[in-house]
Amino acid sequence: MTQEHESTTPGEWVTYRPGIKVLDCTVRDGGLVNEHQFTDEFVKGVYAACVAAGVDYMELGYKGAKRLYSPTVHGKWKHCTEDDMRAIVGENPTSLKLSAMADADRCDYKTDILPKKDSVIDLIRVACYIHQLPLAMDMIKDATDKGYETTLNIMALSTVQEAEIRTALAEVAKGPVNVLYVVDSYGSLYTEQVDAYTKLFLEYTAGTGKHVGMHAHNNQQLAYANTIQSIIAGANWLDATINGLGRGAGNCQMELLLGFLKNPKFKLRPILEAIRDHFVPLSKQIEWGYNLPYMVTGLLNQHPREAIEWLDGPKRDDFVAFYDYMME
Amino acid sequence: MTQEHESTTPGEWVTYRPGIKVLDCTVRDGGLVNEHQFTDEFVKGVYAACVAAGVDYMELGYKGAKRLYSPTVHGKWKHCTEDDMRAIVGENPTSLKLSAMADADRCDYKTDILPKKDSVIDLIRVACYIHQLPLAMDMIKDATDKGYETTLNIMALSTVQEAEIRTALAEVAKGPVNVLYVVDSYGSLYTEQVDAYTKLFLEYTAGTGKHVGMHAHNNQQLAYANTIQSIIAGANWLDATINGLGRGAGNCQMELLLGFLKNPKFKLRPILEAIRDHFVPLSKQIEWGYNLPYMVTGLLNQHPREAIEWLDGPKRDDFVAFYDYMME
Repeated sequence: MTQEHESTTPGEWVTYRPGIKVLDCTVRDGGLVNEHQFTDEFVKGVYAACVAAGVDYMELGYKGAKRLYSPTVHGKWKHCTEDDMRAIVGENPTSLKLSAMADADRCDYKTDILPKKDSVIDLIRVACYIHQLPLAMDMIKDATDKGYETTLNIMALSTVQEAEIRTALAEVAKGPVNVLYVVDSYGSLYTEQVDAYTKLFLEYTAGTGKHVGMHAHNNQQLAYANTIQSIIAGANWLDATINGLGRGAGNCQMELLLGFLKNPKFKLRPILEAIRDHFVPLSKQIEWGYNLPYMVTGLLNQHPREAIEWLDGPKRDDFVAFYDYMME
Repeated sequence: MTQEHESTTPGEWVTYRPGIKVLDCTVRDGGLVNEHQFTDEFVKGVYAACVAAGVDYMELGYKGAKRLYSPTVHGKWKHCTEDDMRAIVGENPTSLKLSAMADADRCDYKTDILPKKDSVIDLIRVACYIHQLPLAMDMIKDATDKGYETTLNIMALSTVQEAEIRTALAEVAKGPVNVLYVVDSYGSLYTEQVDAYTKLFLEYTAGTGKHVGMHAHNNQQLAYANTIQSIIAGANWLDATINGLGRGAGNCQMELLLGFLKNPKFKLRPILEAIRDHFVPLSKQIEWGYNLPYMVTGLLNQHPREAIEWLDGPKRDDFVAFYDYMME
């Protein structure tokens, strides 16, 4: 395969597309299940698995403001200080790049994100809702100026009208961001919609050298299928989590994605080892993954928060009552 | 929507395609998990749910030869006698049609399948491997002559070369069968392959009045996604099971499928009720659904039997060892 095919040629994935990047966001998105209270052993296990599996990026957590997220409630991966990160990765002498997410209005980015030369982080991913776009653009500029790669993840796309998305994409595409992500926050998208979103994003990245990414949730058991669909449509950056760990129904499973990708640099076995050694034990303590209340919120294009609350309550197995409640 | 759109026009499913038929095979495929040892209460629950949900067909089980499947080992849904079926459905005074599956070489069809006028069954589904096609064609002729609707389900398609499939389809399309099924026995197919198979089958049904169906397995969490893809490609008959109950990783979940289909005759709530009342209790007794060993067999395009055995053994949680074993 030649480099001219590297970016977004559909069909090339049947062999493989060298430009595809896999980003593990297990600790970051999974931390939304347990307030980021993972043991160092667990995070080291995820890191080692990502390195061994040939994953391109690992997202360690959020750069969350301590004034908003108290370290007595939230674990260290809500803040991702250099000390905490280095306790896991040292100077990260590997080919795995590291990422942290900065949420608009929830990150003191000017002070908390250090110049790249002082950080083990390689990539800052800026997450925002559509109305926070101007702030997000400033965050991207700040991170770029400090020396980082950047992505923009506009959340809850499925609740935004196409005209607004187009305006946002046109604006953002003028700036320095490296990757624009299609984010299915509610796990509500069907594959034809993923196809359309990916192609819409590609309209605005064409000729800019920027890439399109996909971040899927598994409310309707479509996270993996939708990720494949985004590849076919031309997305090159793919989010996944080991064992699908993530808020609510969780994310695209890394093990399914690496089983599918044909680039020989990707190895499935280290991911299976990590699941056996770290995720099966974790599953005795916290709960994640596809479940009927999440299906209902996905189907209705709603945030999973009400399903999460329902599953913590006394009527957790009465998903008929939950369905009735959501349909009121 | 006019009738001219009824058959296979892509895109029409965004509103809805009246020609789409949903077939519940919960008891038939699910019975492969527990030797068809369901209680009458359970089967009545599935039947009532299918009626209330507007499902088109319910498959009660197999017409398995008693010389091969002893009634002391296998439950009554391995044989589907008229007495046993009528104990559940009476004279079936509903719009739900009933089906039974007849396996090539495992069914004494000439004697055990009664004339339609003496049976509550409406549809005989003939399952075979490709080398059993001549026998399957005789079984279809026999069932047609007796007054039944028929389908042909060629199993393990993913192990058959396209030239053989084409020969089979050309031959079968000359006969009386009503529906030709794409059967992903191993749960190994990706959506692009499902698209290609569905279109291949439609080449041979074009102009015949026959339909194409989809029967998916969930080894790679693609059963539902692949079923949607088959709809887009033009399949009109869709297999699903309540709660995904079925051999190994199970099947396309009825609850996901009915949530997706927009025909107002389909109701999701009765399916959720059935899961709460019958499937949650059953899940304490038997196991089904997506699991890593099934992912591995799906990925490798293998029958799930070795994964099923592994999960019954002492090393069930060591899926790394299973992966190594399958990769030898």
